[in-house]
Amino acid sequence: MSKEITSRAQDYSQWYNDLVIKGALADYSAVKGCMVIKPYGFALWENIRDQLDKRFKETGHVNAYFPLLVPKSLFEAEEKNAEGFAKECAIVTHYRLKSDPSKPGKLMVDPEAKLEEELIIRPTSEAIIWSTYKDWIKSYRDLPLLINQWANVVRWEMRTRLFLRTSEFLWQEGHTAHATEAEAVEETLKMLNVYAEFVEEYMAVPVIKGVKTPNERFAGAVDTYCIEALMQDGKALQAGTSHFLGQNFAKAFDVKFSNKENQLEYVWATSWGLSTRLIGALVMAHSDDDGLILPPKLAPLQVVIVPIYKGEEQKKLIDEKANLLTAQLKNLGIRVKYDDNDNNRPGWKFAEHEMKGVPVRVAIGARDLENNVVEVARRDTKEKKLIGLDGIAQYVDGLLLDIQHSMFKKAKAFQQERITPADTWDEFVKLLEEKGGFVSAHWDGTSDTEDAIKEKTKATIRCIPLDNKLEEGKCILTGKKSVQRVLFARAY
Amino acid sequence: MSKEITSRAQDYSQWYNDLVIKGALADYSAVKGCMVIKPYGFALWENIRDQLDKRFKETGHVNAYFPLLVPKSLFEAEEKNAEGFAKECAIVTHYRLKSDPSKPGKLMVDPEAKLEEELIIRPTSEAIIWSTYKDWIKSYRDLPLLINQWANVVRWEMRTRLFLRTSEFLWQEGHTAHATEAEAVEETLKMLNVYAEFVEEYMAVPVIKGVKTPNERFAGAVDTYCIEALMQDGKALQAGTSHFLGQNFAKAFDVKFSNKENQLEYVWATSWGLSTRLIGALVMAHSDDDGLILPPKLAPLQVVIVPIYKGEEQKKLIDEKANLLTAQLKNLGIRVKYDDNDNNRPGWKFAEHEMKGVPVRVAIGARDLENNVVEVARRDTKEKKLIGLDGIAQYVDGLLLDIQHSMFKKAKAFQQERITPADTWDEFVKLLEEKGGFVSAHWDGTSDTEDAIKEKTKATIRCIPLDNKLEEGKCILTGKKSVQRVLFARAY
Repeated sequence: MSKEITSRAQDYSQWYNDLVIKGALADYSAVKGCMVIKPYGFALWENIRDQLDKRFKETGHVNAYFPLLVPKSLFEAEEKNAEGFAKECAIVTHYRLKSDPSKPGKLMVDPEAKLEEELIIRPTSEAIIWSTYKDWIKSYRDLPLLINQWANVVRWEMRTRLFLRTSEFLWQEGHTAHATEAEAVEETLKMLNVYAEFVEEYMAVPVIKGVKTPNERFAGAVDTYCIEALMQDGKALQAGTSHFLGQNFAKAFDVKFSNKENQLEYVWATSWGLSTRLIGALVMAHSDDDGLILPPKLAPLQVVIVPIYKGEEQKKLIDEKANLLTAQLKNLGIRVKYDDNDNNRPGWKFAEHEMKGVPVRVAIGARDLENNVVEVARRDTKEKKLIGLDGIAQYVDGLLLDIQHSMFKKAKAFQQERITPADTWDEFVKLLEEKGGFVSAHWDGTSDTEDAIKEKTKATIRCIPLDNKLEEGKCILTGKKSVQRVLFARAY
Repeated sequence: MSKEITSRAQDYSQWYNDLVIKGALADYSAVKGCMVIKPYGFALWENIRDQLDKRFKETGHVNAYFPLLVPKSLFEAEEKNAEGFAKECAIVTHYRLKSDPSKPGKLMVDPEAKLEEELIIRPTSEAIIWSTYKDWIKSYRDLPLLINQWANVVRWEMRTRLFLRTSEFLWQEGHTAHATEAEAVEETLKMLNVYAEFVEEYMAVPVIKGVKTPNERFAGAVDTYCIEALMQDGKALQAGTSHFLGQNFAKAFDVKFSNKENQLEYVWATSWGLSTRLIGALVMAHSDDDGLILPPKLAPLQVVIVPIYKGEEQKKLIDEKANLLTAQLKNLGIRVKYDDNDNNRPGWKFAEHEMKGVPVRVAIGARDLENNVVEVARRDTKEKKLIGLDGIAQYVDGLLLDIQHSMFKKAKAFQQERITPADTWDEFVKLLEEKGGFVSAHWDGTSDTEDAIKEKTKATIRCIPLDNKLEEGKCILTGKKSVQRVLFARAY
């Protein structure tokens, strides 16, 4: 089984594709640029969604649902936002098919069913939501409005990669409205922290919180905050963004409220989103050449029990212990499966569960049972131990927690080793080429310089970290004055 | 507050719209034919979804996600299905916008970004899913394949009504594949029963389970089973359908499996769906002229506590009791809110919570507290009682159950009174005009007769009940021989 996976050293990109396909997370579809999220991958997304949804609700947000289709005139109302997404828009122009007279049994677009105004499939929902908020917000009493939406969006892509870049993807998008600038900024940062805590605690992926440069800002935002993760090939991946939108959308859609002094003011806005792209990050941050390694807190299946036996008599004895253990683990809230399918041999099952990244495997063999022990293997380190059957459930419960923590620790060490300062251009280029990761360097603060560095090295400014120290220096490229270092990296 | 709602007697249709809008379930949107599901309405949908999802998983199904867009060539592969939906298809023809040279700041469809093949926004997903199943199903070991998807779909509508008929709606669609016809039929009926049990137990809406006539069958199905509910105006509403698809889609997409004898056979299929339309049914089945009446098992808010006081000292005493009761109810898993917002008077709050259909209201007044009692009002019957504070939480818990049961009982009695046999045409027409509900009558079994009856009376055959008795008779319209009665009604 594992032999079919391309190794990371051989071809990192192919390794990733192999894991996604053979790990049964997703599949290519008959629609160019779109993927099918398979049941195992979708179960992972459900776990991500449920945890995030809980946190959104705990921080006072409610869910709603806005239309998929946006009339062009609304879409273009906030000009920067429209301009930013214009090149990626799927456009509905007709609303009916009819029989094709020249091809029996086939259909054609009915030219008489042309829409008066074209509809854009949402690439993001600020336009449709702010055109609605106009009717919902009249007074300061209607604020804050804290709404989230779980939805599909379409951003047309020519070159696609499963989870990382697909024309359609699933995400959540929060859209909030506030009476003051300070409240909106506070919300933007609050949700950035919700994202960071989730990604670190549940995905076991350490992130750097920061703010984007104008070049990398969301179209229509005043400020874009982000969390940046690091993949095993040394490339960065933006794992979530939270935007302070100022009054841009309120002005574009004329959304005003009367304040306590009964004066009309424009509303302040935020939006924040996180998508199925996270699954790509999860795969690339932890997995190895034998398959996926999933963090226990999100793994669809946390423990698998495999029987090893000859003949029905041994099987019966093992079944009894396995069913008891399954029940005990379920009682502890653990997602467990007893894999006693007799079509496959234990070796095949071991490889299959390794491929799928099940955190803990318990093998119950007839001989071991005589000594009242079973073999427990952890997926992350592949360490195996014989463990006594008494108290085994508690042991496995603790082991899951241990795996979660050590996955984070390992990823954190990997990340820390790869935040490297560079003080000369040669050093900068060499680090990007040979070591990868984040390079911390001085930048003169101009978009031109950022573009030039990207052109020369393919590296972009991932963010200006929130906890950055001010430090005088000289720009790595131009030698001009700089007030702080920023983090550069090549990125997904 | 309640004065703003049109009464059912005055204008049933307007009453429905008033409830949906003023009950804050949904709103019209800037997109023709599409609605915004507001947070309160979406919370209702989340409760419906979570309960159904639990049942789907308990019956062995898993969730997945397939693309929104379907290439025309795939869409038209199953001809009957394609023909059935052709007139309702939203069609994507372009993938890019560009600046409009004649209108500064505006965008236009880029004529150079025309798709080679048009994409249909899924009106239902059989085509895209069965084109995928072709790659997933090779052997009998891959069967059954039991997959469900929660998604948005678009079916273009010219005349729309909130929840009942919108161009975009949310739903779930199950798509299963089986090795034998018998298994597929069993699955079709199993899921019909899951739907019926959910709608009766959770929505408190009684349904009739039956099979559709060929006229009313899903395009591409061999048999369509349905659950039919009855609204207060005597019109029927199809609340869910489960289709036995035979081998139609397997043949259209060439999906074969090798059986245990190593012979290739076409796969058998089912699909079943249930949508946000259910929320419309919920509103129309139970509510009254003062607002929504929601069944406790699905109500976003089950209990609201309202303080009645003068001055801070009284408020403090009430707060103490209210906070304790809130905690006690939460402990019992009850969704409760203490509405101590001092912007609104108690009378306003009473009307607001009645409008929104909160099942139980607890009013805590300073004078009542002296006698250690509070006033408990149930929304369904509007009955009010003074209840001692000792054991109040248990009382409310029991009351919620009682409301759930009596709502079902009331709706069931209403339905039972409105299943009326008719033996002559005059009787048939009179029943439809004056009494409404289901009319049980003989039919000669032809589509022509069904069409003629629909033409004359606007009534359709809602279903042939599953528990129907065979009984010789004469067709209500043609007088021709009939073997059983069927249920006619006007319907949403």
